[in-house]
Amino acid sequence: MKLLSEDFLLKTEVAKTLFHNYAKEMPIIDFHCHLNPVEIYENKNYTNITRIWLNEGSYGDHYKWRLMRANGVPEELITGDGDDYEKFLAWAGTIEKALGNPLYEWSHLELKRFFHIDEVFNRQTAPAIWEKANKLLQTDDFKPRSLIRNSNVKAVCTTDDPASDLHFHVEIARDEAENGFKVLPALRPDKLLHIQNDEFGDYLEELGTISGVKIHNLSDIVKAMHQRFEFFTSMGGALSDHSLETFYYEEADTVVIDGIIAKGIQNSSLTALEINQYLTAIMIELMKLNNEFDWTMQFHINSTRNVNRPMFKKIGADTGYDMMGTQADIVDSMQKLYSAAADGNFIPKTIFYSLNQNDWLQLATLMQSFQGNGVQRLQLGAGWWFNDTAEYMHKQLEVFAQQSLLPNFVGMLTDSRSFLSYPRHEYFRRVLCNFFGELVEQGRVEDNVEMLGKLIQNISYNNAHDYFGFFK
Amino acid sequence: MKLLSEDFLLKTEVAKTLFHNYAKEMPIIDFHCHLNPVEIYENKNYTNITRIWLNEGSYGDHYKWRLMRANGVPEELITGDGDDYEKFLAWAGTIEKALGNPLYEWSHLELKRFFHIDEVFNRQTAPAIWEKANKLLQTDDFKPRSLIRNSNVKAVCTTDDPASDLHFHVEIARDEAENGFKVLPALRPDKLLHIQNDEFGDYLEELGTISGVKIHNLSDIVKAMHQRFEFFTSMGGALSDHSLETFYYEEADTVVIDGIIAKGIQNSSLTALEINQYLTAIMIELMKLNNEFDWTMQFHINSTRNVNRPMFKKIGADTGYDMMGTQADIVDSMQKLYSAAADGNFIPKTIFYSLNQNDWLQLATLMQSFQGNGVQRLQLGAGWWFNDTAEYMHKQLEVFAQQSLLPNFVGMLTDSRSFLSYPRHEYFRRVLCNFFGELVEQGRVEDNVEMLGKLIQNISYNNAHDYFGFFK
Amino acid sequence: MKLLSEDFLLKTEVAKTLFHNYAKEMPIIDFHCHLNPVEIYENKNYTNITRIWLNEGSYGDHYKWRLMRANGVPEELITGDGDDYEKFLAWAGTIEKALGNPLYEWSHLELKRFFHIDEVFNRQTAPAIWEKANKLLQTDDFKPRSLIRNSNVKAVCTTDDPASDLHFHVEIARDEAENGFKVLPALRPDKLLHIQNDEFGDYLEELGTISGVKIHNLSDIVKAMHQRFEFFTSMGGALSDHSLETFYYEEADTVVIDGIIAKGIQNSSLTALEINQYLTAIMIELMKLNNEFDWTMQFHINSTRNVNRPMFKKIGADTGYDMMGTQADIVDSMQKLYSAAADGNFIPKTIFYSLNQNDWLQLATLMQSFQGNGVQRLQLGAGWWFNDTAEYMHKQLEVFAQQSLLPNFVGMLTDSRSFLSYPRHEYFRRVLCNFFGELVEQGRVEDNVEMLGKLIQNISYNNAHDYFGFFK
Repeated sequence: MKLLSEDFLLKTEVAKTLFHNYAKEMPIIDFHCHLNPVEIYENKNYTNITRIWLNEGSYGDHYKWRLMRANGVPEELITGDGDDYEKFLAWAGTIEKALGNPLYEWSHLELKRFFHIDEVFNRQTAPAIWEKANKLLQTDDFKPRSLIRNSNVKAVCTTDDPASDLHFHVEIARDEAENGFKVLPALRPDKLLHIQNDEFGDYLEELGTISGVKIHNLSDIVKAMHQRFEFFTSMGGALSDHSLETFYYEEADTVVIDGIIAKGIQNSSLTALEINQYLTAIMIELMKLNNEFDWTMQFHINSTRNVNRPMFKKIGADTGYDMMGTQADIVDSMQKLYSAAADGNFIPKTIFYSLNQNDWLQLATLMQSFQGNGVQRLQLGAGWWFNDTAEYMHKQLEVFAQQSLLPNFVGMLTDSRSFLSYPRHEYFRRVLCNFFGELVEQGRVEDNVEMLGKLIQNISYNNAHDYFGFFK
Repeated sequence: MKLLSEDFLLKTEVAKTLFHNYAKEMPIIDFHCHLNPVEIYENKNYTNITRIWLNEGSYGDHYKWRLMRANGVPEELITGDGDDYEKFLAWAGTIEKALGNPLYEWSHLELKRFFHIDEVFNRQTAPAIWEKANKLLQTDDFKPRSLIRNSNVKAVCTTDDPASDLHFHVEIARDEAENGFKVLPALRPDKLLHIQNDEFGDYLEELGTISGVKIHNLSDIVKAMHQRFEFFTSMGGALSDHSLETFYYEEADTVVIDGIIAKGIQNSSLTALEINQYLTAIMIELMKLNNEFDWTMQFHINSTRNVNRPMFKKIGADTGYDMMGTQADIVDSMQKLYSAAADGNFIPKTIFYSLNQNDWLQLATLMQSFQGNGVQRLQLGAGWWFNDTAEYMHKQLEVFAQQSLLPNFVGMLTDSRSFLSYPRHEYFRRVLCNFFGELVEQGRVEDNVEMLGKLIQNISYNNAHDYFGFFK
Repeated sequence: MKLLSEDFLLKTEVAKTLFHNYAKEMPIIDFHCHLNPVEIYENKNYTNITRIWLNEGSYGDHYKWRLMRANGVPEELITGDGDDYEKFLAWAGTIEKALGNPLYEWSHLELKRFFHIDEVFNRQTAPAIWEKANKLLQTDDFKPRSLIRNSNVKAVCTTDDPASDLHFHVEIARDEAENGFKVLPALRPDKLLHIQNDEFGDYLEELGTISGVKIHNLSDIVKAMHQRFEFFTSMGGALSDHSLETFYYEEADTVVIDGIIAKGIQNSSLTALEINQYLTAIMIELMKLNNEFDWTMQFHINSTRNVNRPMFKKIGADTGYDMMGTQADIVDSMQKLYSAAADGNFIPKTIFYSLNQNDWLQLATLMQSFQGNGVQRLQLGAGWWFNDTAEYMHKQLEVFAQQSLLPNFVGMLTDSRSFLSYPRHEYFRRVLCNFFGELVEQGRVEDNVEMLGKLIQNISYNNAHDYFGFFK
């Protein structure tokens, strides 16, 4: 089959019909990504394809960087100040070796869908692609807002610190009718969780200032965060996100927690136990807030970040030096969190993601033990990061279907920093249609394309529409 | 392909031939299930299909309950005292969303095989199905014993406390010729293992009374259990079963163990270490007994039960609030158990099951390190509980075949509480035939249908017949 | 499809073309195996097929032994002094049950490729095969050097103690032109790692003697090992190999390490912490040495060996009593090792193998966090030992491709003790061609057989040629 031909990834006739007649035209709700609101606000053209693909200002595609390093490309041509065209050629030389890697398919799909470039991308074709793409990048269609709108996106949720004033969200919202899509904040309280960081005390001051609460203890934090939940909600926010690289559930009295917070403010050193006691307490409070505001919590668990110390010192976080985590019993701690929430009747809507596939069946069986109070309030998220591949998307669908009710799934998200990443929704939908096509082919589900088409459309868009309620 | 058509799950011609010409007609030995002997004894018709599918008296299908909760069905229509017909409709509404879930296939297969209902089950077809099924349920063919016999079952092993007098087994055995199948006890000493429970002391009294041994220490427990093994053996019993949610191998002197038992009897609190020391000691003794009586031990490991505390308080155990466990090194403790048994030359015939698929290769390589004294004495059990799906049945077969000798496998069991669950054997056999069919298609095993047909028949029935020896 | 027909394992036309036109004829570099140099040196014919397949002198195929035990074969006919023909028949009876097991395919492939025996091997065909094979075994073509040369092998790396004088490597090297292949040493310092063994002190003396360094502390060990690296390098060596059954990264000062070494020399008992401190220190030093000499380090992790104590006492190590390990966080310790090496800028070329498939994504994401200084210096090794099957070879390729650049992969190795094991390279290449064939069929890589053929040839041979540099 020709690369990315009309029917790529679709192995059965049913799958082809489902994709072309039902899935393809559905809009997108990209409910978790790392787009920078400033860039959406400024809406500037990119100088060349290296800038939109590899790096531009604070933006960088560390997925690509990582692959280039494996191919022996010098850092100067990755994150350094090398020439843009040379960087592009180095990326072309890398993509030639990326067969079977999602970036091979994504990059070609981006060339095809946005730039209408249908050639195979390699060092031979790179010069012509450079010319053609760079010309197009200067047109209005390649400004960030156009890229989003033309990708049929109806809502984008960014990733925002609770202390943010959401200035750019406010600005973008003014143009909502013209834009044709919403840009909504989603709360990610990393700095609130990282009590061991030197900046913790300063951060609490910042959070206190913006929320109008002087913060000394857990109760103050809850008051401040309550105010932020109100504010984010007023801006259309309805999700939060939490990265738990490791997590050990440890209960402690409020007095103990307040003592730990005091230490954190003063930058006193904390034991692992104290950190986990604090984390446990803060997660419990965040679950209560998410439930009170009817938000959806997201958990991204079992990653280990910034493992390459000298490179972290040199170029910082999110630069391609992360790995899958190794905490085998992290879901045990998640279970204790949800048991506590069940006791207190404050289980929030939740989407669970783990980098470790071995956690997926644990998470799926955990979520099934805490369902209730509505349709599919707890969800297993689509294949995350290193698992964002056709094979593991398929596996996530399989685990969800086998342990729960897949037609209730809220579906795909990009988790991306790039304005060119929306074809990943197309990619996911192909995997999804293929998943159902195979079940039909084996006689395992009703051979009823109309019924299945509707389910596919729900998973592609309608479920997220109803679950998050952005368009109420 | 039409849903559950003649060839469902069978992808190759070889697979079709193997299933239709060899597997289909073989009888069933269901060597591990949770059927209630009282219900077999009483042999009563069910009022309606809700009762036989969802709940009736002490019986309940927590697999279905769990799915209904994910679909937002109120508990009243799940385990509550809601109307039976409304419950049935709620289940119909759930099954519509269960595509890719084994319950979708099982439920349709049960309608098809027992009720000859060939329609797709959904809210539209539910009223007619309700009428038709309920009428049939009043006939003799739908009494428990008929359901078992007509499913071509030759033996059923229940799950019984060692202190049971097996009264209903005795009663049922009187009708064995007429029934056409055996109902055999299998010993599951949960209450003996749970030394931390308040009822432990009372339980030892109960066990002591029925076995005629006054129990104060480990040696007394062994004497009492020896008497129970003799009694169960006299009733045709040849299996035991043990649930180890977590297990840490900890050796201790008999004096220490006796002290722990004394504490258990007095309801004194026990440390985690003490509990594991007791568990280790008791498992060793049970291995000796199983080996002495030539029984088969079953281990079901790595589950976490009753994680939803408020629901556990409200409606108790086995109600759909269980999850896969998270003890990554549980097989390390199993290994120490089998090392000790190798030292003492008392390795029993064993079947290992784990909810964690990552344990399977560990268990398969463990079992291969302790084989001997006969053909395939140690076995990796069929995909258990959350793994009881076509994909994971296939994976279990793959692991067994790759690490050991699959043609020696004792095959499928239902592990079920329901009299309608026997089509799962058909389901398994289709997966099994398909497994070999794919190997033939790839040129990886001899293309010899007669030879393969014989192996399939062995795995379907003959191996279990010979391994357990119920018909000697 | 006929068993092992021309196109076995090849599901697509592309795969068939890739295998037959590109992969098949490539030579072999078997960069990790356990062949005994003495046997290559002596180059003697085997008396009969039992000797070359099951056991002969110090050689034994514990993969086969393990399967025979599962089939109830008495130990006398496995490792004992039973009759060779009876052993052969017992193996024939076992292979009949090994459908889906790699040994079924390997054994048939060996019969076909070396002996041109095309029949299915079972108890019926065994007598004729015994006759035919034994006759051939007396010919020159079945001497070890002929078997290697006729398998198109260009280099073989054995597994050697650092204290070895490589006497037989020296002898074999004299005949290199005539042999047509290199036999190169690879350093495996098991005895240096096992500080807890009684023989540790004696071993340090032996190592000291051969290297001309009196060893009292870590610095002495490094000096001695430096001398051994020089010597092995002079003999063409460029790889080392390390088995870490478990590993916990524990830093300690050199003074502490020297104290631990002194205890080890005196056979004083060591704590688990001390053993891991020593292991950590020694691994760091070995990484420095490997990097200095531009060697490739291999790590084989997460195994548990010799778990059957009575059999270990009776017949020793490497006899089929090993299992997959259970240390869930072993990759966390590997990460700390590589973080330390990044800090010190001494990351060596490395190939990672783990028996636990759940480690593979961890290892692949770990390696991607430490790439640089050349093309694909860190690699995820081919499916090892219990994972050396078509399915897990495929999975390893998938993980490598999805996380890194598969066309840079150095490919297959046998890890074998047998002179008949080279068809495993053919087997791997079929899986490899099939892997790319499936991607083409789904429209996921360019449908360009010439380009793919070149990649296949690189993974089959050229990459290993360039990466290890044996032919510089």
